[in-house]
Amino acid sequence: MTLLDFDSDRLAQFADQVRKDYDELKAKNLKLDLTRGKPSSEQLDFAESLLALPGEGNHTDADGADVRNYGNLKGISDIRTLWAEVIGVDPENLIAGDASSLNIMFDLITWSYMFGNNDSERPWKDLEGDGEKIRWICPVPGYDRHFTITETLGFEMVTVPMLEDGPDVEAIRELVKDPLVKGMWSVPMFGNPTGITYSEEVCRELAAMETAAPDFRIVWDNAYAVHTLTDEFPPIVNVIELAAGAGNPNRFWVMSSTSKITHAGAGVSFFASSKENLDWYLGIAGVRGIGPNKVNQLAHARYFGDAEGVRAVMRKHAGSLAPKFARVIEIMERRLGEYEVARWTEPEGGYFISLDVIDGTASRVVELAKEAGINLTGAGSSFPLKDDPNNRNIRLAPSLPPVEELEVAMDGVATCVLLAAVEKLGA
Amino acid sequence: MTLLDFDSDRLAQFADQVRKDYDELKAKNLKLDLTRGKPSSEQLDFAESLLALPGEGNHTDADGADVRNYGNLKGISDIRTLWAEVIGVDPENLIAGDASSLNIMFDLITWSYMFGNNDSERPWKDLEGDGEKIRWICPVPGYDRHFTITETLGFEMVTVPMLEDGPDVEAIRELVKDPLVKGMWSVPMFGNPTGITYSEEVCRELAAMETAAPDFRIVWDNAYAVHTLTDEFPPIVNVIELAAGAGNPNRFWVMSSTSKITHAGAGVSFFASSKENLDWYLGIAGVRGIGPNKVNQLAHARYFGDAEGVRAVMRKHAGSLAPKFARVIEIMERRLGEYEVARWTEPEGGYFISLDVIDGTASRVVELAKEAGINLTGAGSSFPLKDDPNNRNIRLAPSLPPVEELEVAMDGVATCVLLAAVEKLGA
Repeated sequence: MTLLDFDSDRLAQFADQVRKDYDELKAKNLKLDLTRGKPSSEQLDFAESLLALPGEGNHTDADGADVRNYGNLKGISDIRTLWAEVIGVDPENLIAGDASSLNIMFDLITWSYMFGNNDSERPWKDLEGDGEKIRWICPVPGYDRHFTITETLGFEMVTVPMLEDGPDVEAIRELVKDPLVKGMWSVPMFGNPTGITYSEEVCRELAAMETAAPDFRIVWDNAYAVHTLTDEFPPIVNVIELAAGAGNPNRFWVMSSTSKITHAGAGVSFFASSKENLDWYLGIAGVRGIGPNKVNQLAHARYFGDAEGVRAVMRKHAGSLAPKFARVIEIMERRLGEYEVARWTEPEGGYFISLDVIDGTASRVVELAKEAGINLTGAGSSFPLKDDPNNRNIRLAPSLPPVEELEVAMDGVATCVLLAAVEKLGA
Repeated sequence: MTLLDFDSDRLAQFADQVRKDYDELKAKNLKLDLTRGKPSSEQLDFAESLLALPGEGNHTDADGADVRNYGNLKGISDIRTLWAEVIGVDPENLIAGDASSLNIMFDLITWSYMFGNNDSERPWKDLEGDGEKIRWICPVPGYDRHFTITETLGFEMVTVPMLEDGPDVEAIRELVKDPLVKGMWSVPMFGNPTGITYSEEVCRELAAMETAAPDFRIVWDNAYAVHTLTDEFPPIVNVIELAAGAGNPNRFWVMSSTSKITHAGAGVSFFASSKENLDWYLGIAGVRGIGPNKVNQLAHARYFGDAEGVRAVMRKHAGSLAPKFARVIEIMERRLGEYEVARWTEPEGGYFISLDVIDGTASRVVELAKEAGINLTGAGSSFPLKDDPNNRNIRLAPSLPPVEELEVAMDGVATCVLLAAVEKLGA
C-alpha cells in the first residue's frame, strides 16, 4: 500500500513512527558525507605504485624524447596510443593533457567565446548584446560543474529532459535551429547523476542533426567510459567517426581522463576530436603554455602497461564500488519501496545514483539530513542555476564512505525522505 | 681598431678572410641549436630522484589530507610554505598550481578580459570598439611568450626600453595615465633575454606610481628569482608588501615556478599576490577545475626538503650553466671584441645572453647561421610582433648544448656576425 493510499489515521500513526525514527537518527550525532563523487581510500590504494613512477632512469618516451624537458604540446605517444585504444579512437584524433579534462572544457568554451572556434564567423562574445545571449543545451539532471561553466559565462542554459536512452533528441533538434545555440553538455556513458548511457541511435542522431550554427559543439564528457559496476565494458561509440560520416566532422569535443581511475586530480586528461578541432585548440594552448606534464603521462603509461591494464584496474574499482551501490539500492527498496514516495536509478556504472522524491520535498530532505549530520549534495544541484523546477531530485554519491557508514547514512536518508513526505501530506 | 676605422683595402682583405671562414663553417655541416632556454640533460639529472617521488605510502600532506583525492584549490601547505620562504612572501599570499606559471598568466589576463578582474568596473572586452584597444606595456627586449599572449588577445603592445636597472620608469609613468593601459609584462630578475635585475628603486616606483586604470596589473614573472650563475643569491624584493605599503595592494601578479629547477614542464607553478587578487583568481579557477596536481606538489616538497634545499639545487645548476655562459662571452670577446661590431650582456643569472649586432643585420646573422646549420632564435623574437625596429637584437640560449657544441656554435655565430657586418659595410 502506498503512502497516498493511507487513510488519515494510518498516516498519522505512520507519521508518528517516522518522527520517532528521525529523533533517534538525530540523537546519533552523525557526521557523514555523501556530497561528492570522490573515490575512497581503498580505490586510491589501487594506484599506490604510481606514486613511485616513472622511476629513476625512466624518462624517455616511445619517440625517444626526454619527458623531463619542454615540448610536445600533444602529449607523449605512449599514453596517447594506449588511451586511444581504450576509448576506441584513432591516436591521431587524441591529445593528452594535464590532470583535468574539466580544465580543457572550460578552455574550449571560453576560447570559443573570446576568439571563436575553427568554424566560427565571429567570436561568440560578439554575438551578444541587445538582450541576446549565447544559448547552451543542458540535459537534466546533469553534472553541476558543467552548468557552472556556462553560468559563469552568462550563457542562457536551455534544459532538455533525459530519457531512458539519452537526452530528448526531438527537443534538441528543435533547439539547434537557433543560431545562438552554440553547444550542448553531455555525459554520454553512465551519466552524472542518472547513470544513463546514450544509445547508439541517440549518438547517431546527435552526430547527424542539422544545426543553424556552423560552430555548434557537443561537449562529449565521457568521464565514465570504462567505469562499469559489472563484469561488462559496454561498447564505446566512436562519435568522431559517426560525425565525420554524417558530414559534421567537428561536432564533438570528446573528453576523458584517468582521474577516477588512478588518483583523483593527479591523473591524465584526454581530448579527442577532429584534426581541425585539435589544431584550433593546440594553436591557443600553445600560446597558453609550452606543453603538458609529460613525466606524469609517462608514469601513467608505465602504470597501465596497455589498454587491458586499464580494464584490469577498472575491474578492481567495480569490485569496490558495486557493493556500495547495491547496498544503497537495497536500503532504499526496503525502507521506501512499498510507499512509492521515491524512485531511483539503478546504474550499471559511473559514480552516482539519482534519487527522485515527492515533488517539492527534495530541499526539505536535504535540510533534514543535514540537521541529522548527513551531508547530501544540495537539492537542485544537478540543474542549471541549481534550480530543479520540481524540487524533486537528489544526487547520491556512494563512493567515498566505507560500507558501514554508507548504510547508516542511507538509512538516515530514507527516514528523511519519509518525514518530508508525511510533512508534505500534512500529517 | 674597429671595423668602421678600417680603410677600404683592409676591409676588403678582412671581408675575404671572413668569407673564407664562413665557407669553412658551412663545410662542417653542423646541426646545432641555440634557440630556446631549455635545461640540459645534465641539469635534468639533478632531479632524477623526483621521478620516484613522493613514493609508495607517501600521500598525506602537512594538514593530514590525502593528496591522491580531489580538493584544495590553493595547493598543499607543504610546498606553499617552503616556496613562500624561497621567494620571501607570506604563505597566505601564495598558491601552488600545476606545472606552468605561463598558464596562470594567460588565465589571469584572459579572465580579466572576459570577466574583469577584482578592481574592474567592466570586463576589458567591453572597453574595446570604435578603434579603441586595450594597451599593454612591454619592456624590450623581453620574453617572446609573454608578447604572444597579449598579441593573441589583440592588445596594442606599447614598448619601453630596458635600462641598466630595469625598464624606463619615466616612460611607464606617462603611459599609465591612459586608462586603457591595463597592464605590463616584466621579468624582474635576471630577465629574459637581458639578464638585467630591476633595482629596488625601480620596484618601489612601479609599486607606488599612480595609474589611471584601477585594475592595472603588473605581471611580475619572477621566473629566474633563484637562478644565479654565481655564489650569490640576490635579495628578492617583496613587491606585494611594497605595493600594499604604497596603497596599491593589488598591483602585482607575482609568478614563479620550479620548471627550470626540477623538470621543465613537469614542475610546480606558484602565484603570489594580495588576498583579494588570489580570491578573485580562485573564484574562476574553481569553475575551471577542482584543483591542481597535489601528488606532484608533494613530490616536490619531499625532493627539496626545505627552502635551503632549493638553493642547494640551484648551486648545482649554476655549476653547470656558469661555464657555458663564460665560454660564450669569452668567444665573443675574442672574435668580435676588437672590431666593435657587437655588444652583449654578461648576466649573473638567468638563461639568456642578449646580443646586439650592427643595426639592420640581426636577421641576416640569423639567416647566415641557419645556412651553416646553427639554429638561433629568430631575429626580433624578443620584441612584440617579432618586430625589432633596429633589427639588431639576437637572443642566445647557451643552456641546452654541451660545452663542446656550444663553442663550435658560438664561434660560427661570431663568423656570421662579422660577415653580416662586412656585407653591411659594402665589402
